[in-house]
Amino acid sequence: MSVEISNDAHARRALISRAYDPQLLRAAGDRLVRLLSDHLHIVQQGEGPVLNWHEPQKNIAAARKSLADSNLSVDLVSPPELAPLLERFEELIQQSLARGQNLHHPHYVGHQVPASVPLAAWFDAVTTLTNQVMAIYEMGPWATAVEHAVVEQLGEAIGFEPGSFGGLVTSGGSLANLTALLTARNVALGESWSHGLADHSPAPVLLAHAEAHYCVMRSAGILGIGTDQVLRIPLDPQRRIDVNRLDTMLSELRAKNVPIVAVSAAACATPIGAFDPLVDIAEVCRRHEVWLHVDAAHGGAASLSSKYRHLVEGLHLADSVVCDAHKMLFMPALCALVFYSDRQHRFATFEQVAPYLFDPSAPGMAEFDSGVCNLECTKRAAAMGLWGIWSLFGSQLFEALVDETFDKGLEFYELLNQQPDFKPFCQPQCNIVVFRYEPTQLETLSEAEADDFQLRLRRKVVESGDYYLVPIQIDGRNYLRTTIINPLTTVEHLGGLLDCLRHHGKALLSSSHS
Amino acid sequence: MSVEISNDAHARRALISRAYDPQLLRAAGDRLVRLLSDHLHIVQQGEGPVLNWHEPQKNIAAARKSLADSNLSVDLVSPPELAPLLERFEELIQQSLARGQNLHHPHYVGHQVPASVPLAAWFDAVTTLTNQVMAIYEMGPWATAVEHAVVEQLGEAIGFEPGSFGGLVTSGGSLANLTALLTARNVALGESWSHGLADHSPAPVLLAHAEAHYCVMRSAGILGIGTDQVLRIPLDPQRRIDVNRLDTMLSELRAKNVPIVAVSAAACATPIGAFDPLVDIAEVCRRHEVWLHVDAAHGGAASLSSKYRHLVEGLHLADSVVCDAHKMLFMPALCALVFYSDRQHRFATFEQVAPYLFDPSAPGMAEFDSGVCNLECTKRAAAMGLWGIWSLFGSQLFEALVDETFDKGLEFYELLNQQPDFKPFCQPQCNIVVFRYEPTQLETLSEAEADDFQLRLRRKVVESGDYYLVPIQIDGRNYLRTTIINPLTTVEHLGGLLDCLRHHGKALLSSSHS
Repeated sequence: MSVEISNDAHARRALISRAYDPQLLRAAGDRLVRLLSDHLHIVQQGEGPVLNWHEPQKNIAAARKSLADSNLSVDLVSPPELAPLLERFEELIQQSLARGQNLHHPHYVGHQVPASVPLAAWFDAVTTLTNQVMAIYEMGPWATAVEHAVVEQLGEAIGFEPGSFGGLVTSGGSLANLTALLTARNVALGESWSHGLADHSPAPVLLAHAEAHYCVMRSAGILGIGTDQVLRIPLDPQRRIDVNRLDTMLSELRAKNVPIVAVSAAACATPIGAFDPLVDIAEVCRRHEVWLHVDAAHGGAASLSSKYRHLVEGLHLADSVVCDAHKMLFMPALCALVFYSDRQHRFATFEQVAPYLFDPSAPGMAEFDSGVCNLECTKRAAAMGLWGIWSLFGSQLFEALVDETFDKGLEFYELLNQQPDFKPFCQPQCNIVVFRYEPTQLETLSEAEADDFQLRLRRKVVESGDYYLVPIQIDGRNYLRTTIINPLTTVEHLGGLLDCLRHHGKALLSSSHS
Repeated sequence: MSVEISNDAHARRALISRAYDPQLLRAAGDRLVRLLSDHLHIVQQGEGPVLNWHEPQKNIAAARKSLADSNLSVDLVSPPELAPLLERFEELIQQSLARGQNLHHPHYVGHQVPASVPLAAWFDAVTTLTNQVMAIYEMGPWATAVEHAVVEQLGEAIGFEPGSFGGLVTSGGSLANLTALLTARNVALGESWSHGLADHSPAPVLLAHAEAHYCVMRSAGILGIGTDQVLRIPLDPQRRIDVNRLDTMLSELRAKNVPIVAVSAAACATPIGAFDPLVDIAEVCRRHEVWLHVDAAHGGAASLSSKYRHLVEGLHLADSVVCDAHKMLFMPALCALVFYSDRQHRFATFEQVAPYLFDPSAPGMAEFDSGVCNLECTKRAAAMGLWGIWSLFGSQLFEALVDETFDKGLEFYELLNQQPDFKPFCQPQCNIVVFRYEPTQLETLSEAEADDFQLRLRRKVVESGDYYLVPIQIDGRNYLRTTIINPLTTVEHLGGLLDCLRHHGKALLSSSHS
C-alpha cells in the first residue's frame, strides 16, 4: 500500500501555506492594531453607543452569512490572494467591533466585568498565537511559571503563609467555586470521590450566604449534594452573614451528625456588595471543624489596597478562597484564582492518575502539572495578561484601580442622596451601588407596577445605547444596580446617568399614561 | 460626609490614564505584531528548539523576578513614561517567547494540541481587548451570535437535524464532557439536581469506553456518581467498544434495575486514536433507552472531510457529542463544543433561576443567554477565532487540515514499517501514531527495562528540544506516541524524528552499558 500525493494534496497544501503565512499574519496584524487602538480611543471618549443593540436573530443571521459567504469565495483550485484576504479580514474585524458591547465606554456601569487594561490583550495574544496551554509542565513551561508567580504574589497579598498555601487559575469564578467546593466535599465526605454519594445518610449539607452567587447553589447540584441541601445562612441588617445564627446552625447540625461539606461566605456578595465578617466566621468554623470557603471573586483584589484591605480582613483564615482577576484586577475574561490555605488540598480535588500525562520518569514534575488540580485538562495560559500587566505597572496599578472605583461608589451614593427622585438602597461598601428611580408620578402606581417600571426603564436605557446598567431583585423588589468598573467613568458621567434615567423614565411614564 | 480628591487621587489617575492610553496600545501593538510574525517565521522554518526546556523552579524564579522588578520601578508620584514602558513590554514578550513550547515548529508531534491557525490570534485579540463576554445576551451580543452560527454550522456538518439540535461552547474538552454527562445524569436520575444522590439505591452507574479520556472517570467523581461506579466497556481487538458485550452489560443492568446515567463512547479514544462503531452502539443504546454520549473531542472534525467522514458515521445518533475546535479544527485553546441532538436538553443541565441575570421584562432572551446552559457564568467569547477563520477561509481549510494530517498518520506508519528498529503498535485510523524504538540492543534488557527505556528516551529527546513527542501506556507497556497536528510537519520531518530517536537512544544505551 502506498499513499499518493494527488493534485488535491498540492492544492490543499497551498491553502494551508496561505493560512499559516507569517506575511499574512504581519499585514493583518498591522491592520488589527490600527483598528483596535482607534476603536479604544473613540469608545473611551464616550462617542457612540455603549451597547450596540440588535435583536439576537439579526446578529445571528449576520454571523451566519459571513460563514456562508466564505464557502462560496474560497476554492481549492487556487489559494486566496493576500489583498482580498486582508480586505475581508478588516471587514470581519469591523463587523465585530460594530456589534459588540463597549465596556471601555465611560457609560458602562453594568455587570462586574471590567473595562480591562488594554495591554493585557497583547500579552494574551502571545499565548493565543503560540497556543501555549497547560495540563503538564512540558506543554506550557512558561505559562506554568507565570501562573505560579501570580498565585504566589496574590496569595501573599491576601495574607496566606508563604510556602504553605497553594493555588491555581481556572476558567471563571463559577468553576473556581466549583473546584474549591469539590475539594471541600472530598475532604469532608471521606470516600465520596470513589464511592459516590449514594448510600450517604444522613444527606450532607452545604451552608451558604443567603445571597451567595448562583454558582454556589449550582455547585451543590453538580456535585451530587443537591440544591435542596444548601442551607441559607441568615443575614444581618447589612446583608452579611449573621455569625451567631451560623454558630447555632452548625451546633444543631453537629448534634444531629449531619455531614457538613463547607460554609460558603462572600467577600462580597453579588446583590449589594456586602462583605462578610470573615474573622468571626472563621473562628466559628474553626470551632466546629468545618471547611470555610470564601467567594471573594469581586472583593479579593481589595487585598492589594491599603485603603480597602480592611474589607477582607481574615480572608487568609479561610480553607479556600476564590478571586477573579477578570473582575477587580481589571483583566479580560477569564482568569479566576483558587487558593487553598494548605497547598496539599490541591491534590484532594481529584484522586486519579493518567499515566500518559504524568511521567513516572520525572515524578517531581507532577507538582507543576496543572492537570492534577484543575477541572480543565488542557487549559489556556490564562495568567499571562495578569503577569504582564503586573510586571509592567506593578501592584500599584491594581491598588489605584480598586481605590479609584471603590471611592467612586461612595461618591455616586452621595450624589444619589442629593436627588429627590432617586433613592439609594444603602451606603455601598465598594463599587456596587443599588438604587431606584422614584419620581413623584410613581406614587400613583401599585408596588408591582413601580417594580415593573424599574425593569422597563432599564431595558429602555440599555437598548438606547446611552448607558449600560443592570437590574437586581432584593427581597422581591426590583432595583437598578451599577458597578463602577471602568476607571475612566467620572462622577460627571454618573450624574449623566441620572439625567438619562429621568429622560427615558419620563417618556415611559407619559406613554403608559396616554 | 464628603469624599476629597487628594494628591494621591491625582497621581493614581495619571497612572490609570497611562495604562489605558490608546497611543501606548498602538505603539506596543506595532512591536507585538513584528515580534510575533518574526517568531512564527523562524519557528515554522524549524530553527531553534521545539521546547525551550528549563527546570520549573528556574522558570518560576524568572517569572517572579519580573513581578518584583515592577514594584520597584513604578511609583505613584509620576506615571511611567512611554519609551521605557515600551522597552519593558518588548522584553517581557521576548522573555515569554524564549521560554515557551513551540507548537508551530515542524518537529512538534506531541499532545493533541495543534499548531493553531495563526490569524485566529487576531480574532481572539478583538475579544480580549474589548473584553466581550457571555452569560447573558446583552453583555456579548456579537459573541453570542458568532457562537450560535458556528454551533449551527458544525452541528449540521455532523449530521444533526437542522432546527432540532442545540449546542454551546465551553472551556475545554473536560468541561464539555462534564457538562454533557451532568445533563445525562439529570435526565436519567429524576430529581438528582435538587435532592442530590444520597439515598439513591441501587447506586447509579456510568458505562464508558475502557480507554476513555480520564475526564470521563473524573466526571463520575465530580457528579457524585463515584469513580468506582464507572463500568469499563470491554474493547474489541482494534480497541473499540465491543458492541455485543455492551449489549449484554446493558441487559444485565436493566434486569437488576440499576440506574444507568449514560454510555460514553469515543471518536476517537486517546491512546491510539480508535474510533468506536457509533451506528451499532447507537442502536444498542436506543434499544435499552440509555443516553449515548460521544467524546469526539479529537475526531469530530472529520465530519468536515469527505475523505474521513466515514470514521464518525453515526455521530449524529448520539444524545450528546463533544468536539474540540482547539484540536482538529486547529484553533488555539480553548474552544470546545457540546451538542445535544434535542436542543431542549440544554436546559436540563441546571434547573435554576438567577433573577438579576434573566430579565422577566424580556423573557424570550433566555434562549440566547449562555449562562443558562454553561458551567461558566461569565465566559469568554471563545468562538471568535473559529468564526473568523471559517469566514476567511471556509470549511475547505478545515477539511484540508484534517486530510493533510490524517493522511500523514498513515504515511508515518508506512515509514515505521520500513524500519527494522521501529515497531508501530498498529495501523492508525487518523493522525495518532503509536510505536516503540526497539534496536537489537533492547533484546538483552528485561521487559521492565525496555519499557523504562522508552520513557527515558522520550525525556532525553524532549529536553534536547530536537522533537516533541509523548509517552503512552497500553496494557501496562510503554510506547512512544505522536500526533501529527502541525500541518507543516512533512514526512521528511518524521524521518528525522526516527534518526533523532536513534541518536539519543544509542547514547542512552551506551551510557547505561558503560
